[in-house]
Amino acid sequence: MNIRRIAINTGGGDAPGLNAVIRAATLTALENGWEVLGIRRGYMGLLHDEVDGEPGMVPLSAERVRGITHLGGTILGTTARGNLFGLEVRQSDGTWGDRDPSADIMGRFAEMEIDALIAIGGDGSLKIAHRLFLKGLRVVGVPKTIDNDLSATDMTFGFQTAVDVATEAIGRLHSTAEAHQRVMVVQVMGRHTGWIALESGLAGGADVILIPEIPFSAERIAEKIMERDRARRRFSIVVIAEGAVPAGGLPSFVEGTGRYGGIGDRLAVELEALTGKDTRCLTLGHIQRGGSPVPYDRNLALRFGAAAVHAVERGNFGCMVGLQGNHVRSVPLGDAVTDIKRVPIDDEVVRTARRMGVSFGD
Amino acid sequence: MNIRRIAINTGGGDAPGLNAVIRAATLTALENGWEVLGIRRGYMGLLHDEVDGEPGMVPLSAERVRGITHLGGTILGTTARGNLFGLEVRQSDGTWGDRDPSADIMGRFAEMEIDALIAIGGDGSLKIAHRLFLKGLRVVGVPKTIDNDLSATDMTFGFQTAVDVATEAIGRLHSTAEAHQRVMVVQVMGRHTGWIALESGLAGGADVILIPEIPFSAERIAEKIMERDRARRRFSIVVIAEGAVPAGGLPSFVEGTGRYGGIGDRLAVELEALTGKDTRCLTLGHIQRGGSPVPYDRNLALRFGAAAVHAVERGNFGCMVGLQGNHVRSVPLGDAVTDIKRVPIDDEVVRTARRMGVSFGD
Amino acid sequence: MNIRRIAINTGGGDAPGLNAVIRAATLTALENGWEVLGIRRGYMGLLHDEVDGEPGMVPLSAERVRGITHLGGTILGTTARGNLFGLEVRQSDGTWGDRDPSADIMGRFAEMEIDALIAIGGDGSLKIAHRLFLKGLRVVGVPKTIDNDLSATDMTFGFQTAVDVATEAIGRLHSTAEAHQRVMVVQVMGRHTGWIALESGLAGGADVILIPEIPFSAERIAEKIMERDRARRRFSIVVIAEGAVPAGGLPSFVEGTGRYGGIGDRLAVELEALTGKDTRCLTLGHIQRGGSPVPYDRNLALRFGAAAVHAVERGNFGCMVGLQGNHVRSVPLGDAVTDIKRVPIDDEVVRTARRMGVSFGD
Amino acid sequence: MNIRRIAINTGGGDAPGLNAVIRAATLTALENGWEVLGIRRGYMGLLHDEVDGEPGMVPLSAERVRGITHLGGTILGTTARGNLFGLEVRQSDGTWGDRDPSADIMGRFAEMEIDALIAIGGDGSLKIAHRLFLKGLRVVGVPKTIDNDLSATDMTFGFQTAVDVATEAIGRLHSTAEAHQRVMVVQVMGRHTGWIALESGLAGGADVILIPEIPFSAERIAEKIMERDRARRRFSIVVIAEGAVPAGGLPSFVEGTGRYGGIGDRLAVELEALTGKDTRCLTLGHIQRGGSPVPYDRNLALRFGAAAVHAVERGNFGCMVGLQGNHVRSVPLGDAVTDIKRVPIDDEVVRTARRMGVSFGD
Repeated sequence: MNIRRIAINTGGGDAPGLNAVIRAATLTALENGWEVLGIRRGYMGLLHDEVDGEPGMVPLSAERVRGITHLGGTILGTTARGNLFGLEVRQSDGTWGDRDPSADIMGRFAEMEIDALIAIGGDGSLKIAHRLFLKGLRVVGVPKTIDNDLSATDMTFGFQTAVDVATEAIGRLHSTAEAHQRVMVVQVMGRHTGWIALESGLAGGADVILIPEIPFSAERIAEKIMERDRARRRFSIVVIAEGAVPAGGLPSFVEGTGRYGGIGDRLAVELEALTGKDTRCLTLGHIQRGGSPVPYDRNLALRFGAAAVHAVERGNFGCMVGLQGNHVRSVPLGDAVTDIKRVPIDDEVVRTARRMGVSFGD
Repeated sequence: MNIRRIAINTGGGDAPGLNAVIRAATLTALENGWEVLGIRRGYMGLLHDEVDGEPGMVPLSAERVRGITHLGGTILGTTARGNLFGLEVRQSDGTWGDRDPSADIMGRFAEMEIDALIAIGGDGSLKIAHRLFLKGLRVVGVPKTIDNDLSATDMTFGFQTAVDVATEAIGRLHSTAEAHQRVMVVQVMGRHTGWIALESGLAGGADVILIPEIPFSAERIAEKIMERDRARRRFSIVVIAEGAVPAGGLPSFVEGTGRYGGIGDRLAVELEALTGKDTRCLTLGHIQRGGSPVPYDRNLALRFGAAAVHAVERGNFGCMVGLQGNHVRSVPLGDAVTDIKRVPIDDEVVRTARRMGVSFGD
Repeated sequence: MNIRRIAINTGGGDAPGLNAVIRAATLTALENGWEVLGIRRGYMGLLHDEVDGEPGMVPLSAERVRGITHLGGTILGTTARGNLFGLEVRQSDGTWGDRDPSADIMGRFAEMEIDALIAIGGDGSLKIAHRLFLKGLRVVGVPKTIDNDLSATDMTFGFQTAVDVATEAIGRLHSTAEAHQRVMVVQVMGRHTGWIALESGLAGGADVILIPEIPFSAERIAEKIMERDRARRRFSIVVIAEGAVPAGGLPSFVEGTGRYGGIGDRLAVELEALTGKDTRCLTLGHIQRGGSPVPYDRNLALRFGAAAVHAVERGNFGCMVGLQGNHVRSVPLGDAVTDIKRVPIDDEVVRTARRMGVSFGD
Repeated sequence: MNIRRIAINTGGGDAPGLNAVIRAATLTALENGWEVLGIRRGYMGLLHDEVDGEPGMVPLSAERVRGITHLGGTILGTTARGNLFGLEVRQSDGTWGDRDPSADIMGRFAEMEIDALIAIGGDGSLKIAHRLFLKGLRVVGVPKTIDNDLSATDMTFGFQTAVDVATEAIGRLHSTAEAHQRVMVVQVMGRHTGWIALESGLAGGADVILIPEIPFSAERIAEKIMERDRARRRFSIVVIAEGAVPAGGLPSFVEGTGRYGGIGDRLAVELEALTGKDTRCLTLGHIQRGGSPVPYDRNLALRFGAAAVHAVERGNFGCMVGLQGNHVRSVPLGDAVTDIKRVPIDDEVVRTARRMGVSFGD
């Protein structure tokens, strides 16, 4: 494959490790004698000469990517939902919306003489990358989701960092919950899947773990709390994924608790009413995705970045890199983006937790 | 002073370092040949033989206090507000409420042949300790407030840990805020004073720091954010103490945002409206006070614990230990509990921050 | 399988996560209605009624294993090399030595009516477990090596914690090395394999990584350092596994540097001579294996512990649990203990590092 | 005072917080409308147009000092001992050595129209700054010593970070020492004073703390270890400052242990011989001074930087900034550099430790 110039972009929310991907891909490509362009803010920097008053594309040199492996965020900027192209586009489902920018994008790649694109992104971004591939763009995908819920890879970078931050927070809450004999509800990320809640809850010693895959009953959780109370364990820690839902559905669960109340806040109100115990909720929010990646995530991200360039070298386009066991492999993008990896409700990890006494509220 | 048996209790919210105080006081007292009793949950364990199904008082041996220096919480349990005695008592203002339990308390101390009490607690608990002293109890106070707002000591244990947790969180938000070009509002502890917000905001590189001592204007904050935006700093970090208030007062600030909206949530709504920038709020909550104390807090707490026993040895009752410069001294309890230490608005630290470009929203 | 009582022991050096294995195995077994005995210090507690003045075996209850998931070390104690049985036995190669204690061990298990053993240990300990199995003991193995060098499992617990500690140290050295324009050599664990050096070196941004699998040349390392120097990168970070060796062999490398000089110290002397640059060595030592396991290791260890009990339930003896992809499986002990997993010298991770400019000193 | 241009330099070893001083001083000075020059590598950048192939002086803008508060090292580089001027000069005692460069320095300041110098440095650097002041240079000093041993300030930045790193390491060693029933000797920084050893040893729960101020006896330490052993505490943690010495002096202590053996290594050999217990030494080295400063150090450094500019504004030259209680004050440089702050052997902190059972080996 005769490659002279490639481009890299990052789409969707940030995840610790994005900069490591960029760094490894850049250094590996430079070593091949290629030129590397960074497209700023998804495809916005491709379609617009200037984004936010700065050039839409930046040449990536060894100097430019120095010392960024351990930095959170992304030096290329990310995209707001639905604004991957600098247009008003609904993109969360991967559809183009009213106006299809793909012709513009293809034209710009040709015009800029960019031979291949390394697209780092989540579900939505990879779907778009796949469509561009079907239209003829030479593209290699790098999966990015802090939720670790892509079936095509055993692990995604950023996930262990999120688990680390959440576990640390749960650990801190333990001592104060015990001292005050409180119930602490901790809401962690996970809109569709419960991996972060499951892993951080297990590692942090949560008493109850609530995930989208297993609808919960507030009454059953209250029972667990009171059972502990009777055994003189006067406090309890409940870890809840933001996407967890009560068995009966949300509306009937508890009356509206205002704009700021997430599911964790609602559950705390309910549990306080059911148990009579002082109950507080902490919503961890963005600290889970910000900051320096843990070594595991750095290395996975570096390997993904290098593997993406390796795929370009071999002309292996329309694929996505992923981890299988200890090996980084590539899988067809088409397959990769179809399937979300949910926590199996009879999963060995779930079973491990249950047998250790953790309740899933069911 | 002929001492044979002392008691220790902890009152009010927990703070990292409580266990270190208990450990140092216990070991130092045991070394004197004294007996040491831990009173569980404020004065509840004194007034009731059993609290929560366990004895109200526990003998503290070297074995019992082993390996607890680095643990958060308190092995003696804390008290809910207003329930320091296991009675319905309003205690936040130090008044006895409808029924004065002090005679009961004095009687129990005599009955148990407890020669002196080391009372570890905040403002309210120390006021009660002072009243017991005035009634004849031999008491030494150890100040505990995570907010570091006691005028009688240069520093309180737990504060540096809270600043550490908050600074870490602010650091993590930096990278994600920058990647997404967002405004991040971080609400930290500090009901009456802004020390945690000031120290963590300064250390974490906040752009705006809002403290109870300096009423803020949302408009001025929005100006600061837009000024940064024009200089191509497309994100901003706002650190706000939970007790910060807008200059015009709270009600006129923004319409009711429901039970769960703290001042940070409200401000985020306001700032998003004023700047048009995506704005999020993170309320740090209890992780600031939970978990292992940083070495600074461990050592300060150990020194306070040992100094309290030293005061008992010398018969120096009715006093509170405190840090002055590098020295632990004792001050009269009466003086100690009268004055809260506010951030001086022309404070050198505030001035340092201002001159570095930090806005206080005024 | 009719099980009423099982035993658990830990052998060899400690690794973060041992307590999590013990906790998960105990809780899972108790949930089955089984009794659980912990054998203290390898097999010493089995063969001797008392070890170190305390009973050789301890009943493991839910209370006893509470709150230990995040603790380093092992509540059962470990064994010194060659003293797994409280006898003078050479055990590093798995041979019994002069006196075979296996008859005694089998007798004691029968006498104590222990129906199965969960043996947590490294290479040597698992070999012994295998021999006991061949003599009729119902045994399930749990692999423990901080070096992550067992071929029968994708990952061992403790390894990520060691990588985390080493990466943190390398990160700290970066700033001081740069400020002083120094060469810093960091010696990490890895007697036979270079996994810790490779992963921490890559995550920490090392310039040179030296592993047992790739013999190094001090001259080539010096060249790399001077090449950086000419590019105005005046400092370099060299990460070396304790088992790394120069291509020509150790004796010819540098004259004896005394009892305390590990390979890292020797290399530092050599590099200072070759480059004329101020060069220091830091040997990380035991902090890599002590302290709280990272969440990844906690969860892997918990899963291993539960899976070991699950194997006992199914009567699947003579096996060892291990990770394959995202799944915990079991493999025959005989296979498990034969093969060490070395870093393949054309490994994808090695190649990733090389292409990013990392030298392996070859 | 009519100031238009100031310079800043850093001398001696690095300490976490140096960059924070530079940032605060630069931003505060820029806000005054002043120009700020950074002198690279002590005075070398002043006396040489080029240092290491780059300009000797760099203009410090807001952009240049952005985002450096939390970074270890120093963006201006430090100086090797005895080479503060780029000449062969003995400087550890503050003497000029054979050739006095002060005329050259004064000339260059005049030539460059630098109105004042902010000199950040340790004992030696501040002595030189004082001499330059006596010759007419308008200089303000900022104290830098990770050892916290300057009598003119209650605290120096970097110290708490060093204590933090050392305490974390000691904590990690606890679990492995206990599991293996070992004696662990940890050597920390502190050539002349024992502050780091004292504070980290106390916070980390060391059993023995050895500091330069209190000569130790290996026999007394061995007694302490065996006393613990008899009480079934089979492990011990010994924290030793690098400058600690045996009561009888070093030569008679233990025969030569080669180039790499620090006092900690020597003591480990001795203790193993005396107690018969497996004993290991870990020398923490440069990780204590590298890496991101803890919030306490960041803020102290920022305040020092701003206060130094404030002193320049007021024309308060020949002084050094320092912390007294909670206040940053300035003291005459002449006084500041004369006195080292040793740990008083009857210090309250030492006494606290002793009464908690810590041995000082005396």
